Amino acid sequence: MQNHPARLNRRKRDGGELTRDEIRDFVTGVVDGSLGDAQLGAFLMAVCCNGMTPTETVELTLAMRDSGRVLRHDAVPRAKVDKHSTGGVGDKVSLLLAPLVAAAGVAVPMISGRGLGHTGGTIDKLAAIPGYRTDLSCERFQQVLQECGYAMAGASAEIAPADRRMYSTRDVTGTVESIPLITASILSKKLAEGIDGLVMDVKAGRAAFMQREEDAVALMESIVAVGRAAGVKVAALLTDMDHPLGRGLGNALEVTEILQALDGDCPDDLREVTLALGAEMLLLAGVATDLPAARATLEQLWRDGVVKQCFRHNLEVQGGDPRVLDDASLLGRAPHVVAIKAARPGFVADVDPLELGHVIVDLGGGRRQPTDAVDPHVGVVLAKTLGEAITTGEALAFVHARTAAAAAAASKRVAAAMPIGDKRRRRGALVKRRMA
Amino acid sequence: MQNHPARLNRRKRDGGELTRDEIRDFVTGVVDGSLGDAQLGAFLMAVCCNGMTPTETVELTLAMRDSGRVLRHDAVPRAKVDKHSTGGVGDKVSLLLAPLVAAAGVAVPMISGRGLGHTGGTIDKLAAIPGYRTDLSCERFQQVLQECGYAMAGASAEIAPADRRMYSTRDVTGTVESIPLITASILSKKLAEGIDGLVMDVKAGRAAFMQREEDAVALMESIVAVGRAAGVKVAALLTDMDHPLGRGLGNALEVTEILQALDGDCPDDLREVTLALGAEMLLLAGVATDLPAARATLEQLWRDGVVKQCFRHNLEVQGGDPRVLDDASLLGRAPHVVAIKAARPGFVADVDPLELGHVIVDLGGGRRQPTDAVDPHVGVVLAKTLGEAITTGEALAFVHARTAAAAAAASKRVAAAMPIGDKRRRRGALVKRRMA
Repeated sequence: MQNHPARLNRRKRDGGELTRDEIRDFVTGVVDGSLGDAQLGAFLMAVCCNGMTPTETVELTLAMRDSGRVLRHDAVPRAKVDKHSTGGVGDKVSLLLAPLVAAAGVAVPMISGRGLGHTGGTIDKLAAIPGYRTDLSCERFQQVLQECGYAMAGASAEIAPADRRMYSTRDVTGTVESIPLITASILSKKLAEGIDGLVMDVKAGRAAFMQREEDAVALMESIVAVGRAAGVKVAALLTDMDHPLGRGLGNALEVTEILQALDGDCPDDLREVTLALGAEMLLLAGVATDLPAARATLEQLWRDGVVKQCFRHNLEVQGGDPRVLDDASLLGRAPHVVAIKAARPGFVADVDPLELGHVIVDLGGGRRQPTDAVDPHVGVVLAKTLGEAITTGEALAFVHARTAAAAAAASKRVAAAMPIGDKRRRRGALVKRRMA
Repeated sequence: MQNHPARLNRRKRDGGELTRDEIRDFVTGVVDGSLGDAQLGAFLMAVCCNGMTPTETVELTLAMRDSGRVLRHDAVPRAKVDKHSTGGVGDKVSLLLAPLVAAAGVAVPMISGRGLGHTGGTIDKLAAIPGYRTDLSCERFQQVLQECGYAMAGASAEIAPADRRMYSTRDVTGTVESIPLITASILSKKLAEGIDGLVMDVKAGRAAFMQREEDAVALMESIVAVGRAAGVKVAALLTDMDHPLGRGLGNALEVTEILQALDGDCPDDLREVTLALGAEMLLLAGVATDLPAARATLEQLWRDGVVKQCFRHNLEVQGGDPRVLDDASLLGRAPHVVAIKAARPGFVADVDPLELGHVIVDLGGGRRQPTDAVDPHVGVVLAKTLGEAITTGEALAFVHARTAAAAAAASKRVAAAMPIGDKRRRRGALVKRRMA
């Protein structure tokens, strides 16, 4: 009476373990449409409720990877290593990390996503650079990788199409928060990039996908285990997202911060997380023997301008205007820039990244819906950050807005998100845990 | 970011209890289509995995009842009581029970389903009577009830439309087996009939929806509790479906058995289950003070021909040819009737109802898919039943088939489903448990 998907769903509903063939059939049905929406929704919920064994998660990941094109970069002799982050506010690490690691002799084939909700996306940040193109064909992506040592592209319909349908279905059915489904979603796409190694940046904190550290640790463990079972070297860092990363928040403002960082003017937290992730990538690639050596190599390349040179080369190859490296004003600027001034002296007692992320969305710098357009110029620049001293009337932050009304509304919220207190509060460790 | 249904799904996924308003919103979304298939599938699976509290089940039942028209029979002064069965093989009880109870002064507004799989449906059996119409409008249904004391109709799109979509979605998503969902599905439709009381026949055994007695008991308990909370008097019997009920299996063959039963020629098991359910209905309706008295009343009415008169009246009013009461051959007959003869002497050691149900489907007498047409004339008549003595060459059963080939194939299977042994095996209790 009941069809095959119903049988599969009943098995998962009753806590059974699915076989490799059953999981492959399921993923085939996701892609060719023979699996109905109701069946997919029910399956995802059964996995949320009853979990998946490590073996099932590996099989799901591999089947999703194989649902589309799996890249191979045989023409690139270097080790290929990528980084993936679960996302946060102000997380522009990829833009700096890719040229940094490429400069050290590691190939970085980086396929990134767009922002959704309070979390920014690398593709949106890159889109703020005039002319820069991330809509690369698989062939062009490989050419750029070979030529520059790194390539930055947006998700393609050719890569892991099963994830595309599963992800959008999870979003509307309340089945996002499942470690096996998150693991398979992330790794299926990353494995299809043709990488030898992956460093995972799992963020925990108020503005992270995983607010609670124990959930973030569970995801780290799952990704490391499944990635390794799938034949890729994996390391993972648990990093802080209880505060924003860096000072520029909003697409063009974050690119500006990266351009400054390439010249050595980089906020400590951004530098620290970038170097920690980069050192892991060098280790995985086998181009460094230990973390301190890897880190020293990266710092040297950064200081000597090799990283900036690598960034410039990629910019030229991917169509971006290289003049932005010398003149960030070419990125453009929102018409209304308003300073938020401190109403009292003291220390910045908090910087709420979730509220700031929502402010940026409301300014037009992020998406409520996947189809929303993004304004590249709006956002917030933190003049002061957590624990810094401030005097009355001094600038706390700057709001970049499209209209005066939007600037005024955002300013109030930013001021509330950055209270000033009497005691100097210090940020906790940025890298809280490591698995490698 | 996430919409309302996703939030509801997450709550149920995480084991939370939904409010009355949330459940009403959900059911509204089921009916108006604003809830997508994926969201519905995920919700149903979350309920399968995490259950529902009694309060949630009551609210779901009431919201589903209120998703369509709720009948009121104010013009009928009698108490309105119906019976519902979870279904089985040879279960033609409704055809006899409705006139029996109506004859005793209880109004029986009976809306029934069609058969699916090995389980027969009352509507298909009634369709075997030439001219008999069950596609009554709500208005006509009420008229027939007033005129005859009972009315038999098929499910209408106006009654509990939410259940229609939920039921078909459950079928394809592997979310059928959930006590709260089964309870709400059954009761929402029955409560919309405008009844004061309901007797539930929950069958347990090989050919029952619930094979295991503990599952059947859990369903009884749920239906009794939820039905009462919804303001209806409820009694429930747990009856045996480890063997077929009666001797006629297949639509017209079952009607023939009913016509004989009206004249007093009724198999013991069919008589026993019908009287047990009927007595409960009289008690719920308040027209009898105890079960033995109720039973005596029913037996008297049956013996005196009042039940047959009541059946005849309804037959005339609902368009059926009343001449079938005197000449069952007017029901028609399959062209190939083959006797299965005993290969050895002994006693009938088993009558496997599940296999016989599948044989009937394969003969064309049931549905594999909801859209399948049903052949009214095919089926099996048991010449001997469990525990009865048989001699070599004596008829064990008769197969009624459309073709000689179908008859031959069915005969082999029926013979295998009715082995002959040396020891007389007796059937266990027909009514195994009562809740009232």
